[in-house]
Amino acid sequence: MQDENSNNIKVLAFDVFGTVVDWHGSLVRELDQLIPGIDSNAFALSWREGYAPAMQRVRSGELGWTLLDDLHRMILDQVLQQFGVTNLTAQQKYHLNRVWHRLDPWPDSVAGLNRLKSRYTICTLSNGNLGLLANMAKGAGLAWDCILCAEVFRKYKPDPDTYLGVAKIFDLEPAQVMLVAAHNNDLEAARACGLKTAYIERPLEFGAQAIKDVSPNSENSMHAKSFIHLAELLEC
Amino acid sequence: MQDENSNNIKVLAFDVFGTVVDWHGSLVRELDQLIPGIDSNAFALSWREGYAPAMQRVRSGELGWTLLDDLHRMILDQVLQQFGVTNLTAQQKYHLNRVWHRLDPWPDSVAGLNRLKSRYTICTLSNGNLGLLANMAKGAGLAWDCILCAEVFRKYKPDPDTYLGVAKIFDLEPAQVMLVAAHNNDLEAARACGLKTAYIERPLEFGAQAIKDVSPNSENSMHAKSFIHLAELLEC
Repeated sequence: MQDENSNNIKVLAFDVFGTVVDWHGSLVRELDQLIPGIDSNAFALSWREGYAPAMQRVRSGELGWTLLDDLHRMILDQVLQQFGVTNLTAQQKYHLNRVWHRLDPWPDSVAGLNRLKSRYTICTLSNGNLGLLANMAKGAGLAWDCILCAEVFRKYKPDPDTYLGVAKIFDLEPAQVMLVAAHNNDLEAARACGLKTAYIERPLEFGAQAIKDVSPNSENSMHAKSFIHLAELLEC
Repeated sequence: MQDENSNNIKVLAFDVFGTVVDWHGSLVRELDQLIPGIDSNAFALSWREGYAPAMQRVRSGELGWTLLDDLHRMILDQVLQQFGVTNLTAQQKYHLNRVWHRLDPWPDSVAGLNRLKSRYTICTLSNGNLGLLANMAKGAGLAWDCILCAEVFRKYKPDPDTYLGVAKIFDLEPAQVMLVAAHNNDLEAARACGLKTAYIERPLEFGAQAIKDVSPNSENSMHAKSFIHLAELLEC
């Protein structure tokens, strides 16, 4: 069954934040350096919590089209206030906001992607913007064949135009594209568009103090512990 | 002077057709195989000649937004008729149209890009569409940090939004971006937007029967015989 699936698949589209890179750990490391004594775990979680509601404001039309860098900055300004941080310069805030451009990959990401790339076209399908994803890829050594994202489609996931957009760009059927993600809601939306789906276990996405449930969902085409494991399942 | 320029530059944006890849030679090779006995040199030149007028129809609004793959197909159908080729199947025509996804790099392109990538962010800035450029990069081994093109900006070069769009995506000043191209009109339009420019000599772009004038234009920031030479000028 998995063989039959994998023979048909041409493109692997990857969710990025949490799936390819460790946003929580990366934020904590930079926050501890920049603002000593801050509760960096809580700060990181608050910043990320603002993400879905901010995108929802764009999706609903309350906000015009806004890049993730700018949404991150709006949320950051709120979180800094909430945590009583008032002593950062404009330059420090600009630099801190771009921590999302410098996220570290999970230990298996670079090697796993390189194996998967030998047989498939690998691209991002992220709500991050092009500049963010390109800077991240260069810093982390993520050898994408192509960077696709909300900015290209002018829609945020889980809008169907994003999932179907990947198939369209490569002139493929939706079932020839597999979304790889650590989030079941993302995978569910992709499945509704006819894409194949692979769940990746990232139990530490929200840090060691909030281990994530990574139990399998039989609706996904594949379930893998890492990108290396996914490469094995996909015979790369 | 070149030192001063190069210290400021962060992103090298590359024109692709003719600058990175040899469209004429690649088309001739595939045409000779697919349609033995055809005047493949004349066919390739006719196909490419249709390119600027087709894009102009999009720019003028006569045609709605149309990807280059579709413009190439419209021109191909005309050229096939013009050359009296009536025996290709639908599948063969689809395959032939995608020859633009399979163009071969110039001999110095892959090694030169890899050197330039060690110090700069390297991206495309092409009128090709995302799928075309991603397939070409994968086939030819072009290790772009990011694929940018008309499809992302929904404008064809030489629209200023394309050149300025690269700077905007990376949150840079226009002068921190250098356009690398084998075409003076492209470089001129980039310069008018404040970008730095590097001319690359590609005397064989239109084949050995129509050697191109590649003499230097002092308005360009740099003039290089190849990507290797450009890497030397940019101290990579």
